[in-house]
Amino acid sequence: MSTVALAFDLGGTELRGALVERSGEVVARVSEPTLAGAGSEAVIGQIIALANKLLDENSLAKVIGIGACAPGPLDPKAGIVIGPPTLAGWHNVPLIDILSRQFGLPVRLENDANAAALGEWRFGAGRGTESLVFVTVSTGIGGGVVADGHIYHGRRGLAAEIGHMTITGEGDRCFCGAVGCFEAVASGTALGRRATRLTAPGDGSLLRRLSKDGDVSARHVVEAARTGDATARDLVEAEAKWLGIGFTNLLHLYSPELIVMGGGLANGFDLLSPTIRATIDERAMPAYRDVPIVPAELGDRAGLVGAASLILWEGEPGTALSMVQNEESKTDGAADARVG
Amino acid sequence: MSTVALAFDLGGTELRGALVERSGEVVARVSEPTLAGAGSEAVIGQIIALANKLLDENSLAKVIGIGACAPGPLDPKAGIVIGPPTLAGWHNVPLIDILSRQFGLPVRLENDANAAALGEWRFGAGRGTESLVFVTVSTGIGGGVVADGHIYHGRRGLAAEIGHMTITGEGDRCFCGAVGCFEAVASGTALGRRATRLTAPGDGSLLRRLSKDGDVSARHVVEAARTGDATARDLVEAEAKWLGIGFTNLLHLYSPELIVMGGGLANGFDLLSPTIRATIDERAMPAYRDVPIVPAELGDRAGLVGAASLILWEGEPGTALSMVQNEESKTDGAADARVG
Repeated sequence: MSTVALAFDLGGTELRGALVERSGEVVARVSEPTLAGAGSEAVIGQIIALANKLLDENSLAKVIGIGACAPGPLDPKAGIVIGPPTLAGWHNVPLIDILSRQFGLPVRLENDANAAALGEWRFGAGRGTESLVFVTVSTGIGGGVVADGHIYHGRRGLAAEIGHMTITGEGDRCFCGAVGCFEAVASGTALGRRATRLTAPGDGSLLRRLSKDGDVSARHVVEAARTGDATARDLVEAEAKWLGIGFTNLLHLYSPELIVMGGGLANGFDLLSPTIRATIDERAMPAYRDVPIVPAELGDRAGLVGAASLILWEGEPGTALSMVQNEESKTDGAADARVG
Repeated sequence: MSTVALAFDLGGTELRGALVERSGEVVARVSEPTLAGAGSEAVIGQIIALANKLLDENSLAKVIGIGACAPGPLDPKAGIVIGPPTLAGWHNVPLIDILSRQFGLPVRLENDANAAALGEWRFGAGRGTESLVFVTVSTGIGGGVVADGHIYHGRRGLAAEIGHMTITGEGDRCFCGAVGCFEAVASGTALGRRATRLTAPGDGSLLRRLSKDGDVSARHVVEAARTGDATARDLVEAEAKWLGIGFTNLLHLYSPELIVMGGGLANGFDLLSPTIRATIDERAMPAYRDVPIVPAELGDRAGLVGAASLILWEGEPGTALSMVQNEESKTDGAADARVG
């Protein structure tokens, strides 16, 4: 087995680990439900256990470092998980320090949306571009920006909080307290909420049949729209308009070569795309209208391979990619790194 | 006289030229009304005439290059002014080629908002920071973003078109065709329009007395608010709320160390600032709330000194600044460059 990075994608629901090759190929993968309510020590214990499992089962792997991603806010330079709303008891956890001491390997940390942006840029829908905006639309809306061949970080790594860009004065109040956030009107959650309000339990609608008369989710809306259901089609149309307004802002603000849409709602990209495009053509200034909007290619691998690339790759696409040089990478690798 | 850059700030109303030293000091300055309706050849003729005037009157200056800024859209890398709405007959004008052939000097081009951002960052309100967003609020709203010590350009240099970021669903249609653009609700023009609608000729209001019963401008509103006029104060309050919403977006999207507000409306910065601040405190996520919002310091010099810095400076503040090395700069300078 060739040189690999140990990669972790720490989510509020699932903790994923993998061994990833330089090519972006995932050669081994493990996951388990995150003990999200149990505090940082318990979850770090899970990470260590999964790491050891991967290393034990792949004893020939030459592991040169650990790339991890976690929900923001986090400080990628300092290596600190500041306080993600989905992980109880995580306050300024120095994850890089903890993992590098534990494993004696170089560790890099990035927020999950930035890692997914890196993954799609280096190995997915953004291959060959110099800049892109990655937008993940699911429960919330997050994003990562690659510009001039690098993640755009800003102060404390906090740039590209695109879910909390105000795009309207209407709609439900966002969990952040403001009205009109992109996320509050255009996330999968917002779409499900609109569908739930538009229907009622027992009304016989396709949406409520799919949801078994429970709350309707974005997934049900996409499923119903695929069968031609008129209510679902209208909901998809309205959703795509909001996405188009938000994407137009991203074009005007970041001027990327490409927008890549990921997250759960990307499953309905083909249905959403025509109205997203029409909204951009209507609202964007002419010079921005020819920028492609494409679906993500890597699914839930994007964060893992992006995190791994923090260890495996440095440099820019289209130019010579140089390996990250670490003193630690010159040791004998996996066997030495395994800890109990 | 020391080494200088010849700088031009080509506006739709005024054409400004200057000789600027490495320190940012403007050692000579000329200006005249732009022949904005006369096409590119006439205006380039004005630039050449002003350049020769500056060179003639400062024959000891050692001019090492020309830094110019012009309204967008323009392509800074290719050196092409694409088609600014305020300059008739400018379509894909290769300004760098034209001026470098004319003067035999290196020429650099940047859009006016980016040049002003560079000026404020290197010599004004942003000295010592690594990142800032410069926002100019006057007839329209424009901006420039400095990140990691560089102007954030994006594809074709088109990033930071912040005036056309949608922030609401209400208000007058923007000249770009969309509803809800930051510029359409928060520019000086929008403020003047609201003041004009709220009053009527002959109503005896302070605003109409200041405007001599003509249309009320943003300048009149600021002037009246300074005297405590209640209507003007309310207008300033509403204006500051819109600015606060837009600035919150800029914090979430770019995460700068600083926002610098320039343009005509910056004259009322002290009146606007408390409500801008309160709006940010209400809407921004906690991690962004401590970012200072400050007024620009350089006034109408910002674009000139920023354009000059494209020639005079390379590198980042706080680190060693290296001079741009040009073969041409090693010649004897001004006398050789002067043309008829």
